[in-house]
Amino acid sequence: MSVTAAAGFVASGVHANIRKEKPDVALVRSLPQATGAAVWTQNRVLAAPVVVSKRHLETAEPQAVVVNSGIANAATGAQGEADAVATAERAARLLQLAPEQVLVLSTGVIGALLPMDRLLAGVDAAAAALSPDGGDDAAEAILTTDTHAKTSVSRGDGFTVGGMTKGSGMIHPNLATMLAVVTTDYPLERGEAIEFLRPAVDVSFNSITVDGECSTNDAVILLSSGAAALERTAATDDAFAHALLAVCSNLSHQIVTDGEGATLVAEINVNGAVSDLEARAIAQRIATSPLVKTALFGRDANWGRVLMAAGSAPHNGGYAHVDPALVSLSYNGTAVLVNGAPQNVEPDVEGAVCTIDLELGLGSGKAAYLTSDLSYDYVRINAEYRS
Amino acid sequence: MSVTAAAGFVASGVHANIRKEKPDVALVRSLPQATGAAVWTQNRVLAAPVVVSKRHLETAEPQAVVVNSGIANAATGAQGEADAVATAERAARLLQLAPEQVLVLSTGVIGALLPMDRLLAGVDAAAAALSPDGGDDAAEAILTTDTHAKTSVSRGDGFTVGGMTKGSGMIHPNLATMLAVVTTDYPLERGEAIEFLRPAVDVSFNSITVDGECSTNDAVILLSSGAAALERTAATDDAFAHALLAVCSNLSHQIVTDGEGATLVAEINVNGAVSDLEARAIAQRIATSPLVKTALFGRDANWGRVLMAAGSAPHNGGYAHVDPALVSLSYNGTAVLVNGAPQNVEPDVEGAVCTIDLELGLGSGKAAYLTSDLSYDYVRINAEYRS
Repeated sequence: MSVTAAAGFVASGVHANIRKEKPDVALVRSLPQATGAAVWTQNRVLAAPVVVSKRHLETAEPQAVVVNSGIANAATGAQGEADAVATAERAARLLQLAPEQVLVLSTGVIGALLPMDRLLAGVDAAAAALSPDGGDDAAEAILTTDTHAKTSVSRGDGFTVGGMTKGSGMIHPNLATMLAVVTTDYPLERGEAIEFLRPAVDVSFNSITVDGECSTNDAVILLSSGAAALERTAATDDAFAHALLAVCSNLSHQIVTDGEGATLVAEINVNGAVSDLEARAIAQRIATSPLVKTALFGRDANWGRVLMAAGSAPHNGGYAHVDPALVSLSYNGTAVLVNGAPQNVEPDVEGAVCTIDLELGLGSGKAAYLTSDLSYDYVRINAEYRS
Repeated sequence: MSVTAAAGFVASGVHANIRKEKPDVALVRSLPQATGAAVWTQNRVLAAPVVVSKRHLETAEPQAVVVNSGIANAATGAQGEADAVATAERAARLLQLAPEQVLVLSTGVIGALLPMDRLLAGVDAAAAALSPDGGDDAAEAILTTDTHAKTSVSRGDGFTVGGMTKGSGMIHPNLATMLAVVTTDYPLERGEAIEFLRPAVDVSFNSITVDGECSTNDAVILLSSGAAALERTAATDDAFAHALLAVCSNLSHQIVTDGEGATLVAEINVNGAVSDLEARAIAQRIATSPLVKTALFGRDANWGRVLMAAGSAPHNGGYAHVDPALVSLSYNGTAVLVNGAPQNVEPDVEGAVCTIDLELGLGSGKAAYLTSDLSYDYVRINAEYRS
């Protein structure tokens, strides 16, 4: 059901011949007056659609999103920016919106210009195809080298949150990667969407890694149609926040599971750090360590590597605090290290999921991170594409 | 010639049965009263020999170094620390030194205790074998999974700098890695060695990466016998600094060349950054990017990945400055991007060495980093060791 699960939304996905034989233009719009927000890549090298969409968000609440796959419109200079603007303008005209009410997203090859005639024809076709049943088509049209569409829906008492995402690491040479569009009928005031979106993204999309890379196009957009008939209270706000987090977590989990070459998903839980920020730095360092990730591929509970990574987590210009004498560590619930003392056991890490719990014994800071393993296929996919 | 190239030094390498059939205990000492310094791993999880050696350096100038390979004596608690102290005490007694004048280094498996009876017998044998010709034996005895010994000598006008190192990434499951001992006869005052050592290490050992990992045992030690008969001037100091840098650079280059699974060495040069610190953050981010490294393995001049990595270099809690419109980039001298404009050329990256020059056009900050590629063999070595 994806982005049309919530009341008030229509969507579509069409083939505009940017990608070979696959749908490549998606359109999502709210029929009622919508509110919305976005969280963007922190990369200093921003793709043109990110630059344009950020500008649009500064002046208007978003009502619709156009996404194309195949070409990322990144590293394309002034022409790329003009193309992103033209795409928003075409969609706005067709939907009777102001251009600033339309956000544009692109994913695909870096350094190539969009084929604007085909893209604009695609936008025309997508606008004509908009439908309350179009969520799944839209979810197909945003994929590049993902192995399957990624959607999620969570229903609360009287409201719905639905989303679609794409991404499986920067799998393609010069490919810019992760996008997500989440819609809801839960009513939000102007400017309020970001307050719900940011904390949900922090512990979902911002707490996963396939290869530690941050693309030039990463974006998560939330649109609210406000079409749910309910009276907002602190309790319903809480329920909405939970549903939004559920969708974001589910979508981001799907990205890691579909990570390039992934044979295993690992959940890294860090507790007892000096602060949440330090816990996060440590969890991220473990989750991106090539040595930890190759050991996971080998199904090897190689705790020395986890300890090594934990001890070298960058934080505030130095490293996050770890006292080896206080550290406890377990794999899938089996303790390999207790207060610094090795336990001489061999935990079972044979499955497709591995939970690593690190207790630092220093404070109450905690964080969790999802990661995949580092396999031959990761190297093959990323080294051999052109050969 | 290694650590005995400089006048005043004796060394040895013996087999103490810690490793199978290979030499595993090295001893280096200065016969004249020596001065020295060390630069240590920044990892929060310190191996016992690092803890003990740091303490010794606080109270005395070092005169000798004992190194064992096979077991890293890391994550070994109070017993590990007592073992490191006992090793220094045994060497000190044999060499008629104070225990604080002896530094101890270990490299090998994390989480295992040293076999102290064998190690101490090895120290006895090493002390008996000390010789002005022992440098090469010492260089052999510090290796673990390195494929060959790594030594370097630089001669100035009237003085010599010689060194040995080991390391090829954290190649072995639970193995703690990089060590270097550099000796010279250039006369240094007490406390002065660190002033020469730190800047040399910053642009050599601290500017290389195989996999971005920082082990629990990394150490670089400089010992000066002062045996060279020369009058120090600003010019000779400068010549010594250059010779020291030459040895450190050569040794660190050998580590990258012998990096796990490496088929290529890449030199990443960043110029035109806002500051040297930002340049360094960007160079390091590029040098550790799995996508850049797999592309190099595939001999693919994949500039989009370099741009993506450059734009996401952590600095001061945010990211280092990059303006895509000002960036120029070349591979082996062939420009692929000039002031943000793609050049539509395919540079030759077929060889075993690749130079990547990134010009940011923002300021005068610059930095260089050496790295290896990420190959199937890296994954195999690190994933399959136990299987």
